[in-house]
Amino acid sequence: MRIARVLLERADRVGLAEGPRLVACDPDGLVALDLRRAAALDVLEHHGEAEQARRIAATCFPGSLTSVLAGGEEVLEWMRRLVARRDPDALVSLEGARFCSPADPPAYRDVMGFGAHIENTWARTGRPPPSVLYELPLYYKGSTATFLGHGATVPWPPYSDWLDFELELAYVIGRRGEDLEPEAAMAHVFGVTILNDFSARDMQFHEMRGRLGPAKGKDFATVLGPVVVTLDELDPGALDMLVMVNGEVVSRASSAQATWGPAESIAWASAAEPVRPGDVVASGCVGRGSGLELGERRLAPGDRVELRVEGIGTLGNVVGERRSGGWRPTKKASG
Amino acid sequence: MRIARVLLERADRVGLAEGPRLVACDPDGLVALDLRRAAALDVLEHHGEAEQARRIAATCFPGSLTSVLAGGEEVLEWMRRLVARRDPDALVSLEGARFCSPADPPAYRDVMGFGAHIENTWARTGRPPPSVLYELPLYYKGSTATFLGHGATVPWPPYSDWLDFELELAYVIGRRGEDLEPEAAMAHVFGVTILNDFSARDMQFHEMRGRLGPAKGKDFATVLGPVVVTLDELDPGALDMLVMVNGEVVSRASSAQATWGPAESIAWASAAEPVRPGDVVASGCVGRGSGLELGERRLAPGDRVELRVEGIGTLGNVVGERRSGGWRPTKKASG
Repeated sequence: MRIARVLLERADRVGLAEGPRLVACDPDGLVALDLRRAAALDVLEHHGEAEQARRIAATCFPGSLTSVLAGGEEVLEWMRRLVARRDPDALVSLEGARFCSPADPPAYRDVMGFGAHIENTWARTGRPPPSVLYELPLYYKGSTATFLGHGATVPWPPYSDWLDFELELAYVIGRRGEDLEPEAAMAHVFGVTILNDFSARDMQFHEMRGRLGPAKGKDFATVLGPVVVTLDELDPGALDMLVMVNGEVVSRASSAQATWGPAESIAWASAAEPVRPGDVVASGCVGRGSGLELGERRLAPGDRVELRVEGIGTLGNVVGERRSGGWRPTKKASG
Repeated sequence: MRIARVLLERADRVGLAEGPRLVACDPDGLVALDLRRAAALDVLEHHGEAEQARRIAATCFPGSLTSVLAGGEEVLEWMRRLVARRDPDALVSLEGARFCSPADPPAYRDVMGFGAHIENTWARTGRPPPSVLYELPLYYKGSTATFLGHGATVPWPPYSDWLDFELELAYVIGRRGEDLEPEAAMAHVFGVTILNDFSARDMQFHEMRGRLGPAKGKDFATVLGPVVVTLDELDPGALDMLVMVNGEVVSRASSAQATWGPAESIAWASAAEPVRPGDVVASGCVGRGSGLELGERRLAPGDRVELRVEGIGTLGNVVGERRSGGWRPTKKASG
């Protein structure tokens, strides 16, 4: 299955007011099955009554992938049957649809998974990378409040002069797990999508000196999509990946180059705490998957960044104009 | 108002199966108003029908403070009226109740807000604190999946030999804000509670060398409670705070000693991203509010840690036995 989360603006003005819908996309990406509508029609067809059919469908298939996954295997099985049946009365055109992030996770962890990215980013400091980066699949925890989808304009935060992209995969957790071994971890994954970890490098490097992890350097925008592809359709172990800026290919990589792959990353994420349905565990940037690693190439307002991953699709976004203003703290006297 | 989130095990076996309830506590903490029940009774009294009364009450006052706050000012006003009316048929005894974290936030940020704590923790490294800690109210982002309440046993993660406590306040956001100025920030706060930022120091120091922030060193347990006190009842600006371990007072502080107070912390948290209803922004540990700062005093299994804050109450927890096992990654070859 190829699951997207869309606002069907042109097709249905009321749909917009109702918020995002989960849809299962055809491979061509032009037509999709509205899961809530398909579920309501399915209840009706099995002798249910209309109002209760709408209620059941809205409860089991709201516009949140996390909620669907939290419904467990019964809801997932029903979703698979609905997608297989593909009721023509529940098909919608994706022409003019606005894509949201397909994932709406309770938590988002982004692992430093690619050794080449570790080396490239530390090289500019003139110091070797800390050895702990090779001892543990470390991650930073990112904001889920600023997840955006394919086609969204990326906001330029007022505190930054240096915006950059990062080419990553994102794994969406399908069911809860805690203290997982790597061998068991992938059975907890629902699917995989593309992630662009937009970064305000100047702020990121500044705040990371405080050792508390990046925040304003990352949390203004994270883009995911266009679709989550379930792992029964795609093995994420060796996917070709590339970055285009304004139509020009600037970087190529493969997910096979990971130092810490998804199994170990998710296992460590689940140590002494749960990974929950809908959670996103991202791969980290691939080697040379950022402008930082390409001669400190910086984005400019209006630049179009596209990430393409074999078997998933293309995640494209335009960088917006820099916003002015914004409060900045005044330095405090140190002790 | 003094809002708690409880499982009423003894009082009502069905209540446990229904999950946590939001209650408004009397100042003595022995009796509380079950908000959902009070709301249903209120609808009935105003000529509503029973089934719809139950449905409205369950929708407006589910067992989630975040959901109540996301209902906006209308729901909050209704809550205030219910608490003022205090229908005796909606009162429950808190005897035997189990406390959950009163907050169930979409995001949890913990600010390094106290200069004395910054200096004390950096002193052991032999280096001065990074200046950015005085330039910005930096925070780490913690897990919300392991929030615990007053009375819960604190799990000891298998990867640590050194467990510690941290005495903090936690501010619960009442309504959404973005790009707030400090002068406007406090109007977005619903209330304040006590937070014990339990820490696995050995793992924390190890992983923070990677510059991505603490994760396993913090995310196994964060305790909040026992109640969120609304800011119309309590000014959090100069509260006496103390730590007791096994009944002995080991540290005293005041919230007035903050270098970065809640207004600046929340304003910075809202820069280029929203703070959302239910979000928790914590103060950071007060100076000498951790065992680390008290001669590297370490917790042992069975220790009882109590944090007491003027006007809020006492947050008490016992540390559990160390768990064994747990997968640990194998070191990778560096580039």
